[in-house]
Amino acid sequence: MNIDEQVQTLAANAHQVTTVEELKKKLESAVADGRQLRIKLGLDPTAPDLHLGHSVVLKKVRQFQDMGHRAVVIVGDYTARVGDPTGRNATRPILSDEQIEANARTYVEQAGLIVQTGDAMLEIRPNSEWLSTLSFADVIRLCSKMTVARMMERDTFENRFKKGVPIGIHELLYPLMQGYDSVAVEADVELGGTDQTFNNLVGRNLQRDAGQEPQVVMIMPILVGTDGVEKMSKSKGNHVALLDTPDEKFAKTMSIPDEAMANWYELLTDIAPAEYNRWIETDPMEAKKQLAGWIVAEYHDEKPAAAARGEWERVHSQRELPDDIPEFPIPIDLVRDGKLFLPILMKAAGLCSSTSEGRRLVEGGGVRVNGEAVSMATAAIAPVNGTIIQVGRRKFVRLRV
Amino acid sequence: MNIDEQVQTLAANAHQVTTVEELKKKLESAVADGRQLRIKLGLDPTAPDLHLGHSVVLKKVRQFQDMGHRAVVIVGDYTARVGDPTGRNATRPILSDEQIEANARTYVEQAGLIVQTGDAMLEIRPNSEWLSTLSFADVIRLCSKMTVARMMERDTFENRFKKGVPIGIHELLYPLMQGYDSVAVEADVELGGTDQTFNNLVGRNLQRDAGQEPQVVMIMPILVGTDGVEKMSKSKGNHVALLDTPDEKFAKTMSIPDEAMANWYELLTDIAPAEYNRWIETDPMEAKKQLAGWIVAEYHDEKPAAAARGEWERVHSQRELPDDIPEFPIPIDLVRDGKLFLPILMKAAGLCSSTSEGRRLVEGGGVRVNGEAVSMATAAIAPVNGTIIQVGRRKFVRLRV
Repeated sequence: MNIDEQVQTLAANAHQVTTVEELKKKLESAVADGRQLRIKLGLDPTAPDLHLGHSVVLKKVRQFQDMGHRAVVIVGDYTARVGDPTGRNATRPILSDEQIEANARTYVEQAGLIVQTGDAMLEIRPNSEWLSTLSFADVIRLCSKMTVARMMERDTFENRFKKGVPIGIHELLYPLMQGYDSVAVEADVELGGTDQTFNNLVGRNLQRDAGQEPQVVMIMPILVGTDGVEKMSKSKGNHVALLDTPDEKFAKTMSIPDEAMANWYELLTDIAPAEYNRWIETDPMEAKKQLAGWIVAEYHDEKPAAAARGEWERVHSQRELPDDIPEFPIPIDLVRDGKLFLPILMKAAGLCSSTSEGRRLVEGGGVRVNGEAVSMATAAIAPVNGTIIQVGRRKFVRLRV
Repeated sequence: MNIDEQVQTLAANAHQVTTVEELKKKLESAVADGRQLRIKLGLDPTAPDLHLGHSVVLKKVRQFQDMGHRAVVIVGDYTARVGDPTGRNATRPILSDEQIEANARTYVEQAGLIVQTGDAMLEIRPNSEWLSTLSFADVIRLCSKMTVARMMERDTFENRFKKGVPIGIHELLYPLMQGYDSVAVEADVELGGTDQTFNNLVGRNLQRDAGQEPQVVMIMPILVGTDGVEKMSKSKGNHVALLDTPDEKFAKTMSIPDEAMANWYELLTDIAPAEYNRWIETDPMEAKKQLAGWIVAEYHDEKPAAAARGEWERVHSQRELPDDIPEFPIPIDLVRDGKLFLPILMKAAGLCSSTSEGRRLVEGGGVRVNGEAVSMATAAIAPVNGTIIQVGRRKFVRLRV
């Protein structure tokens, strides 16, 4: 690939590149100077379970690596050690050094399914390395690079400020901290989702101020979850985890609405839009099976992909399902250790009148999940969108997120 | 004095006390525990020249000392070493350690004209002692105690934010820093002018959060300058410096408008309002001379006060002055080493056609300042509001700020 082709490939499915001209210059100067570009990516050590949503950005990292450049993964350990100082935000727990290390290791293992992991292609840097050395005076200088008004332009702050939802002064420090990371590692490119646009642009300002050439900011689009509506997220239960089994990956993909297929094809495969759009139009069921098979094959190989397809078809074509299966929202509060216990679920969904009746029905072999009879040994099921629970011959519900 | 009388004396001329009940409790517990209250006062090492405006708060400190309590003067050296990180604000220069020490020494010498300075009654603490030990994580925790909305309630921030005047993020750190000083020295009372209200109240919050009893905040009213309008300030040239000579103090006080007299009597003397109001009403000229004499006597003694009065009267009663002396604004850009050179001033004011003509007039003895003939040896005069320059018999101007 020549440079123009590289730029085209890299920018093709990006939501925003600031700027394409600068990206081209960076690629050219890397060739001229015989050096690798440094492709920065943030890692949140409080959320180490990766899913297809994360894979969008990781695939972009891989493209850069395949062109010879180096991924620089920043482990945000410094703030993870502080946690949420107000104690109000449960999603920002204080992590111990051991937890941070374990999570970073888990993350890299999963990311290794997508990116190259050799030292020449991947550098992992905890941001405590530089943030722990800053004094109060350094923080004052860092904060002076940015105004309150500019910070309030960030959409999440703007909305909260207008609605009177409290914003702690410390929250204004996080974008500056993330921007300072770019200065510390001398990033050439920073990758992120649309929710990172503001923070990544702060990095450009701080680099310029520090006399560095500002990083190119490449923002990737959001992958919708299996519900086809919301951003894919573990906390919403609409995700396909990288560590899911082939059967889980296939079935979850088959559960997405037809309208979500184009978004998934665009962000998860290398297939050209003209081609997948034709498939979706002519035979949506086959297009979805192709997509699911492609996703399984990427993480497990062709053979498990074919097996997963076979299994899914066997279950779903075995019997005729009624057209109007009532939907039942997954009762998150009943989930234990990531599983739903069928007798409890059945009672909640009105498929039986008590948990003990549900237990008897399962023991009697009268309960099927996605067409398969279950026993008490298999009665704890994953809370997966689209799962069909059948009791006897005529009672059905379809789980939805 | 019993405790109730102490509270009454201390609160008498304060603009605001948060709260009077807490002040009473503090005084009571000090007696019960046999300890001194810690009376905090901030010192800005970038502005060590004290004037009557500063004396208002210092006199309040002295009242506390006379009741047995200890003044704790915080030298704001930490921020003085940072200066203005944006480089835009000339009033926040970076000071060297030597400058900071010299300024603090100068300040304490001048303050010593009003407050007790023995170690038992005065403690001087540079805030670098604790601020230099804070890590970035500590700053995050400190910042989490306060929201953006609450910070924007500070009137100077609110006005600037509304008008779109940039506010650096670092500026939000200063009130927190000042509040943290109160935690570090375990202040019982913080004194300040009305412009410090917000910062001092932040100190209460941070102390409460740190498990300390919150400090009582005592805000003193503003002393107007010799112009009778603006807050007294060296940069506005409307100040009476503590180190001014008796004659300068007397003459500057005599230059204030009659309407400013009550404010000065209230904040600079212990005379009861009923009494000074009667004087002002019956004989404003004599009331002003009494005030000027009282101020001189406080800093120099009775004899210099009487001499200053005699000198002022001699100069001002010697001759009849015309009723309509034109005013001339003090040309700040012509001030050199704090003085105006008369021939240059006269040319600027149109009293002569050239500097060399002005020089000849001075040498010939035809120029008077406040009624006194000047020679070339005394031709550099202080740029004092109200000073009357007379050339020949009929040309006059009155300097004004």
